[in-house]
Amino acid sequence: MHRVVITGGGFAGLYAAKALNNVPVEVTLVDRRNFHLFQPLLYQVATGGLSPGEIALPLRVVLRRQRNTRVWLAEAIGFDVAARRVILADGEAPYDTLIVATGVSHHYFGNPHWEEVAPGLKTIEDATRIRRRILLAFEAAEREPDPEKKRAWLTFVVVGAGPTGVELAGAIGEIANDTLRRDFRATNTAESRILLVEAADRVLPLYPPDLSLRAERSLVGLAVRSLTKTFVTSIDDSGVEVKSEDRNWKIPSRTVLWAAGVQASALGRVLAEHTGARLDPAGRVMVEPDLSLPGHPEIFVLGDLGNFCHQGGKPLPGVAPVAMQQGRYVADLIERRLRGEAAGPFRYYNKGNLATIGRSAAVADFGWTRFSGWFAWMLWLFVHLLYLAGFENRVLVLIRWAFSYFTHNRGARLITGPTHG
Amino acid sequence: MHRVVITGGGFAGLYAAKALNNVPVEVTLVDRRNFHLFQPLLYQVATGGLSPGEIALPLRVVLRRQRNTRVWLAEAIGFDVAARRVILADGEAPYDTLIVATGVSHHYFGNPHWEEVAPGLKTIEDATRIRRRILLAFEAAEREPDPEKKRAWLTFVVVGAGPTGVELAGAIGEIANDTLRRDFRATNTAESRILLVEAADRVLPLYPPDLSLRAERSLVGLAVRSLTKTFVTSIDDSGVEVKSEDRNWKIPSRTVLWAAGVQASALGRVLAEHTGARLDPAGRVMVEPDLSLPGHPEIFVLGDLGNFCHQGGKPLPGVAPVAMQQGRYVADLIERRLRGEAAGPFRYYNKGNLATIGRSAAVADFGWTRFSGWFAWMLWLFVHLLYLAGFENRVLVLIRWAFSYFTHNRGARLITGPTHG
Repeated sequence: MHRVVITGGGFAGLYAAKALNNVPVEVTLVDRRNFHLFQPLLYQVATGGLSPGEIALPLRVVLRRQRNTRVWLAEAIGFDVAARRVILADGEAPYDTLIVATGVSHHYFGNPHWEEVAPGLKTIEDATRIRRRILLAFEAAEREPDPEKKRAWLTFVVVGAGPTGVELAGAIGEIANDTLRRDFRATNTAESRILLVEAADRVLPLYPPDLSLRAERSLVGLAVRSLTKTFVTSIDDSGVEVKSEDRNWKIPSRTVLWAAGVQASALGRVLAEHTGARLDPAGRVMVEPDLSLPGHPEIFVLGDLGNFCHQGGKPLPGVAPVAMQQGRYVADLIERRLRGEAAGPFRYYNKGNLATIGRSAAVADFGWTRFSGWFAWMLWLFVHLLYLAGFENRVLVLIRWAFSYFTHNRGARLITGPTHG
Repeated sequence: MHRVVITGGGFAGLYAAKALNNVPVEVTLVDRRNFHLFQPLLYQVATGGLSPGEIALPLRVVLRRQRNTRVWLAEAIGFDVAARRVILADGEAPYDTLIVATGVSHHYFGNPHWEEVAPGLKTIEDATRIRRRILLAFEAAEREPDPEKKRAWLTFVVVGAGPTGVELAGAIGEIANDTLRRDFRATNTAESRILLVEAADRVLPLYPPDLSLRAERSLVGLAVRSLTKTFVTSIDDSGVEVKSEDRNWKIPSRTVLWAAGVQASALGRVLAEHTGARLDPAGRVMVEPDLSLPGHPEIFVLGDLGNFCHQGGKPLPGVAPVAMQQGRYVADLIERRLRGEAAGPFRYYNKGNLATIGRSAAVADFGWTRFSGWFAWMLWLFVHLLYLAGFENRVLVLIRWAFSYFTHNRGARLITGPTHG
């Protein structure tokens, strides 16, 4: 039986595995986590709107009925391309076809020490860490008598105004101005400052300019101030130093969050060393039009880890729809190959882009039309519920959202883990 | 304004705070966590049935509308009884009346090093740690080729057959025989051994003997074997050594869970040193019939931290109803004192005891009647939903339970934190 090994259970890996359901192959899905994470809603865990369990689904549950597929909780650390084996931290997995889809992590542009003070948002642990940081800041402000120190606790800086940064900043704005309004006695949370720092000249720089403008307007409504054309030059636990048009200044803040850069998983580099594949500056693997590696038709790189630039010249964006479509495409290609058929190149069909800013505010870009406001927000809710794996999770998230909408509350406001940090 | 400081936001502290709502006092509730934990359902988080956020409610949310009450996220580390101040890790809180309700933690009977290998279940972090241990054991078994090692991964030992031990063992039985049945390819999870080790001669030793017998029968149905009159002599990461009637033997197991002993919070000892109050062998503070300390009518010790033995000679059990009734009693006493009235001694009104063993199985003891089975289980569900603070949480838990009941699944099966441990 033809053996397919998939490393990574994100959108690309999981959708590839699912699409191989009725194909006569033996699938092994290797992931170091036991669950698929619905990353588009991770910022809601980070801001106390949802619980981790509501946006994570055990891979075994998703693939339970798929008898040709086994799930291994294991960490892939390398490849023996000649012998066609994935090297695991504690074993190996032989393959005939290999799908590598281990994604990306944060990138601090040569300042890895910033990670300690300015956490990014990629994993469940990142999200609960950010949640702890945000909630602890308000708790510390409540007990801080010194007005200047209190102000630093109530200043939140989000670095990077892509969709994640905008969503995070918007959610913090909602927390400060709405959710927590009546919860404190010695603190007016509405006096919080939320700053969104972006190097480009507008927020959501990859969206059309008029949508950036509308997003900015929604952010202003949530008391989020965006600092565009502004670069971060230094971060420590007392705040952020920024530079804008020859002016340098410091923003005193106890809560700095990172939403600026990503870097390909280290497995991309390992793979390149063994196959001669090229990497782009972010460490993503350059792939062929069929997502395979040059000279290695049996190895595919999918999702955020791959750089697919055969459609319009620019690499495809690191979003879930690209990963899902690539997963399904490769599954289909494998099936065709087994039947001796050829497959055409991968084509990404862009159904549109959505970003939400907060309560009743979102922007939508479908190419042929674009709009913002309440209807875009409803569409955002609908699409995210639709793709959220697992019917039970969908119902739970819908209820959380309905409660939040009507009560202006956020149910998952736990500070867990180390209480001071 | 008369100042009441409450340390601890568990059932005793929270119910005292809530009952002081319309009393002309200024309340400060101090807790090192920002949430009230609904401990009776904590074992369901440990076994993947519920998410942490579903059984924890932010103290600020519960007390939001109570204008005479402020919540401080702070750790109480001592008392200055003469100056009437609580010493915090980072400050102090002056009081006129002090309520200490900081509860209990695990007790390993002089073997504190067992904690590392046999975690107990008191906090949210304990619960996610136990969940990780249980789920990782099945994952490791799936990839273990050696039959003997695999058997050790599939052997689960729960030490202590009180309500928590019985609930944990029963839930693991359900996971092995039902939830995970179709999730693995190389492992028959129904071959798992779940052993419940108890020093007394029956499970649920504080319940009437006929209910112990019925609980035991339900456990057998879930493939849980109880080893009564059996003592643990040693625990390490290869298993448990036990002793029973002069026979010593070793149970190879990679997952040992502790539900045997509790010890009063260290604040009890600190309080005793400063007030001359006596402690019982478990470190609980001996209280007067009105729950105050001898010679200190302004200091009350409530809940699991206190030993109230003025009703039948035996100390009251460490259960939520005792704590809740004590909280309300002291609030009422404080109000009466302010009005110059006297208050009678505390009386615990035992409404009955309930323990659940698994799907459709529970035992109920109301003194005048006792029963077990499906009806006891429905009653257990109803009572726990009734007392679960927060309407949103109630709805979420109800939905989780309904899904679990009909799909035989458990939605919150995340392995978070360090993946190996």
